Amino acid sequence: MSVALDKLHSRIERCGSMLCVGLDSALARLPQPFAAEPQPQLAFNRWIIEQTLPYAAAYKPNLAFYEARGSAGWTELAETMAFLRATAPDVFTIADAKRADIGSTNAGYVRGLLDELGFDAVTVHPYLGREALSPFLERDDKAVIVLCRTSNPGAGELQDLVVDGAPLWQVVAARVRDAWNANGNCMLVVGATYPAELARVRELCPELPLLVPGVGAQGGDIEAVVAGGLDARGGGLLINASRSIIFADDPAAEARAARDAIVAAVAARSAA
Amino acid sequence: MSVALDKLHSRIERCGSMLCVGLDSALARLPQPFAAEPQPQLAFNRWIIEQTLPYAAAYKPNLAFYEARGSAGWTELAETMAFLRATAPDVFTIADAKRADIGSTNAGYVRGLLDELGFDAVTVHPYLGREALSPFLERDDKAVIVLCRTSNPGAGELQDLVVDGAPLWQVVAARVRDAWNANGNCMLVVGATYPAELARVRELCPELPLLVPGVGAQGGDIEAVVAGGLDARGGGLLINASRSIIFADDPAAEARAARDAIVAAVAARSAA
Repeated sequence: MSVALDKLHSRIERCGSMLCVGLDSALARLPQPFAAEPQPQLAFNRWIIEQTLPYAAAYKPNLAFYEARGSAGWTELAETMAFLRATAPDVFTIADAKRADIGSTNAGYVRGLLDELGFDAVTVHPYLGREALSPFLERDDKAVIVLCRTSNPGAGELQDLVVDGAPLWQVVAARVRDAWNANGNCMLVVGATYPAELARVRELCPELPLLVPGVGAQGGDIEAVVAGGLDARGGGLLINASRSIIFADDPAAEARAARDAIVAAVAARSAA
Repeated sequence: MSVALDKLHSRIERCGSMLCVGLDSALARLPQPFAAEPQPQLAFNRWIIEQTLPYAAAYKPNLAFYEARGSAGWTELAETMAFLRATAPDVFTIADAKRADIGSTNAGYVRGLLDELGFDAVTVHPYLGREALSPFLERDDKAVIVLCRTSNPGAGELQDLVVDGAPLWQVVAARVRDAWNANGNCMLVVGATYPAELARVRELCPELPLLVPGVGAQGGDIEAVVAGGLDARGGGLLINASRSIIFADDPAAEARAARDAIVAAVAARSAA
């Protein structure tokens, strides 16, 4: 297991939560008084982190919300990461960047996201194959989270195409399991909005940790995610909620409720 | 045809070149004295643009080389774009960003890349499907360049998987042709390193403009690209070279030679 996945596992054990808080801090949605701050996304993120840290195993900023503001957004993302490292060095951090270029070019993303910004993990598209992703996959100190079955309504258009009797997302899952995970640093993205697919990914990949977005605003159900996604040791899941927590009237209460719902679902599953 | 593709077509007609120059201005590879400048990537890009503008229909910075430097890189990319718009407002510009997230999130990339930085076009991954890409596809003033058959050695791992008797890259090509191109603003990426696949994409998609990377440092052959990729009107191709031009001892001479090789290949094809 990679250093980063060890870190994730330890953090989940220590804080008793599989919750990932998505820092999708769209400028247009920031509440006052954050919107009036000189660094609005940073000020908001600091507050969200302070509110939710006891309940969060991980934080996952989606890069699109920062790139929307150009270099100012990048600066605030970098300062958010510096704040996180200083405040909670044991928390797991994911650059939800959904990158993937040809091999030599990916080195730039590795440097920018994993080294300069210091994220523990990055999300990547599978379309260019393992060879192209090798600059990510070779980083055995980090985690590489491959899109498998995404949470969006139209995910099936390509992902459900049938290859040798199985949908493409199953082929991706099997390839990551058998060929891409040589350094023990891979995870898969499977949307909470597709619980049957999530359970099938867990059958196919008993050992791979899963990042599951799509609870909260997108409507995925925590009990179904836990029922289908837990591994044999009762772990292997990182469940993300973004908008439903960070734009709640009381983000701390919302994060605690999400943490509690996950804990209850795991307990019910263990008792079953 | 979208405003952006009209712009591309007009620029190709006016400058008599289908060449795209890739601004893959990796900091570690910049020649002196640019590396010593306070804004090294910007200084280098300005020089490359001045050297190559008579021969270039388009410029294509790959975002990875700028993100590698965080907000400083973004600032120099933005200033490169400002310089391009001021110097050559008719030149076509591509953010080679290879983005794609779920629908609402893509709005951030649209804003950052197409509105704030002002690119005419952006490259995107197809894996999440048309629905997710709709914030890009709805922009009928811009162009959306979908990865179809990429130029990297391991491209076939997923892209050659057979779906209903045809490889996945053909399915992507057909879907873009039939369903994603409602606003007439789509192009496809097909690597010069796969000339047979390029010719097949042209058969399948007689009308779609193709962005063809992989000549130059990656070894693709210009004659084969032209033979396979021209549309019925003798156009529809944008052929990219990056490192072989920008890191040449004489980028102007190298860009002129590439332009001339393309023109000669087109002429030979027309005469045939």
